[in-house]
Amino acid sequence: MADTERNFCVRYVRQPTGSVGSSNFRLCSEPLAECKDGEVLIRVAYLSLDPYQRRQMMPDINYAQPLKVGDVMVGRGVGRVIQTRHDDFNVGDWVKGHLGWQRYVSLPGMEVEKIEVDDFPPSIFLGALGSPGITAWVGLREVAEVSTGETVVISAATGAVGSVAATLARVSGCRVVGIAGGKRKCDYAVSRLGYDACVDYTRPDFREALAAATPSGVDVDFENVGGHIFDCVLERLNDFARVALCGLISQYNLTEPGGLYNIDKVLNRNATISGFRVTNYIDRYANALAELKGLVRGGRIPHVETIIKGLDKAPEAFVNLFQGAHLGKLIVQVDESIVQNKS
Amino acid sequence: MADTERNFCVRYVRQPTGSVGSSNFRLCSEPLAECKDGEVLIRVAYLSLDPYQRRQMMPDINYAQPLKVGDVMVGRGVGRVIQTRHDDFNVGDWVKGHLGWQRYVSLPGMEVEKIEVDDFPPSIFLGALGSPGITAWVGLREVAEVSTGETVVISAATGAVGSVAATLARVSGCRVVGIAGGKRKCDYAVSRLGYDACVDYTRPDFREALAAATPSGVDVDFENVGGHIFDCVLERLNDFARVALCGLISQYNLTEPGGLYNIDKVLNRNATISGFRVTNYIDRYANALAELKGLVRGGRIPHVETIIKGLDKAPEAFVNLFQGAHLGKLIVQVDESIVQNKS
Repeated sequence: MADTERNFCVRYVRQPTGSVGSSNFRLCSEPLAECKDGEVLIRVAYLSLDPYQRRQMMPDINYAQPLKVGDVMVGRGVGRVIQTRHDDFNVGDWVKGHLGWQRYVSLPGMEVEKIEVDDFPPSIFLGALGSPGITAWVGLREVAEVSTGETVVISAATGAVGSVAATLARVSGCRVVGIAGGKRKCDYAVSRLGYDACVDYTRPDFREALAAATPSGVDVDFENVGGHIFDCVLERLNDFARVALCGLISQYNLTEPGGLYNIDKVLNRNATISGFRVTNYIDRYANALAELKGLVRGGRIPHVETIIKGLDKAPEAFVNLFQGAHLGKLIVQVDESIVQNKS
Repeated sequence: MADTERNFCVRYVRQPTGSVGSSNFRLCSEPLAECKDGEVLIRVAYLSLDPYQRRQMMPDINYAQPLKVGDVMVGRGVGRVIQTRHDDFNVGDWVKGHLGWQRYVSLPGMEVEKIEVDDFPPSIFLGALGSPGITAWVGLREVAEVSTGETVVISAATGAVGSVAATLARVSGCRVVGIAGGKRKCDYAVSRLGYDACVDYTRPDFREALAAATPSGVDVDFENVGGHIFDCVLERLNDFARVALCGLISQYNLTEPGGLYNIDKVLNRNATISGFRVTNYIDRYANALAELKGLVRGGRIPHVETIIKGLDKAPEAFVNLFQGAHLGKLIVQVDESIVQNKS
């Protein structure tokens, strides 16, 4: 049977209690879906691994695209059209969308978007020019509304979102302080990502080190982590500080969430915590991408990826995402042949 | 020695750890301060007891008017000018200001404000037409920006702030759901204060009862309480909900603050928690008072007070404030003679 006649996919088969593990997924070989009228059949090249995918496994989640046990695991991806029944697409077009963890997917043309691979490497549309980059832009520009001269703290500083947020804060003339786990990541944050300082949350004196790195307090917190790290940042808030609450990665694998103990600082400082989901800011995407493309072209946003090869490695790579050992955007390369065949 | 030649005051003598008690205060008899040039000497009539005064005893508090051990206890009050060395004031004028827990105080004229006792009872300037009323207005109108048709939850529903907030939410065409402790307060909230429903947080099934009272979820939370009650409201938030974080009265007497466990709901719902201090909205006071005076005149805001007689009873009354047994605004009447002599 030819390769293109069967699909290879990863299904989400069990809801995790506590940490997500490989046993929450199952690799499946299935008949290829038919490309229906109005659809395009896509061969998936790269998949994005992101913390929000863990949140989609929670029972109470309020996402436009819910994840149910038994589904092909959801996830953003880029790939190439290999069959088309939609007038706007040609065979060979590169597209991005919610492709899911699979080698092939047939989707309505209106659910995917062409990407400009002549100007940029395809996988960057899963990072700086994709949802993580736009998320960073929305959080800083729309939610927190950073201003010149402010001190901005970014947790998960070296992640796909944090690394773009750092550049955006710098071009706004802010002091940018990262929080990351371990000396290697902190050094990388300062040397490659342009942070003014990066504080290692694994240090026993993290709280004091954060205070030392933010001598004028914190005006904006781009919060990706939650828990104790978040509490330590709340202690540093200035009057009228804004927290762009983007993620709580430290909490997703806990059976019971940890408490947040410094909410009184939000009260005392006339501060604001704004949770945001990037999909609620679709009308800002064009503005976001205009700035982000300029920064990528100008070399201001380094293109750093950790690429895991093979769809069968996706579950393990996803589990490791929460250990935080990788640098930059974590990506699964589904199919090597298509990538080598890009140009 | 004549009555007016010595002052009688309550000093704050010990920082509380955990619950505030009478032993944190001391009654003192002291020489009367001189009325200096530019000052007015005021005989204090009524003092306001408010939860924020407990927050001022916390070491890390960020208030314009800090409270230090040894100080005369801070507090808002109304009283009458009995000596004046400021051109804008005459003997007999009624004024309000940070008078403190004492029978007499001499303050610069610019630090106090005349009140219109011909139209309103003097003590209402400590409640609906004072800081609590303005706080309610700022929280709903400026911070949460309530709209017609929204569901508004107000914790500490029958308190000085909550009772005014309820009226403001009602005149904005909202469904107004209170949270209070005990059947007596909840009945009073619905029968006197105009709440559509009021949920008793002492019920073992409080969480379920709150859900039943908010069938369309919660768009605005006017949060005065914090802790578990706050967590239960967070579970009910709708997309784009706003929390006007006004107080955390459940936390002030704890040695260690309780955790907040549902911050993920703020993230998932694209919601916002905005801490606010009313003193940061001074430019809105005139607008606030214009609406509040109209509502008081129209009988829309009931004037409900619990009056404790005698300055020496102030510490005990303040301690009891956190038990929440009183209805309406809790006020200390410092000196009966002056009040009887009002007109």
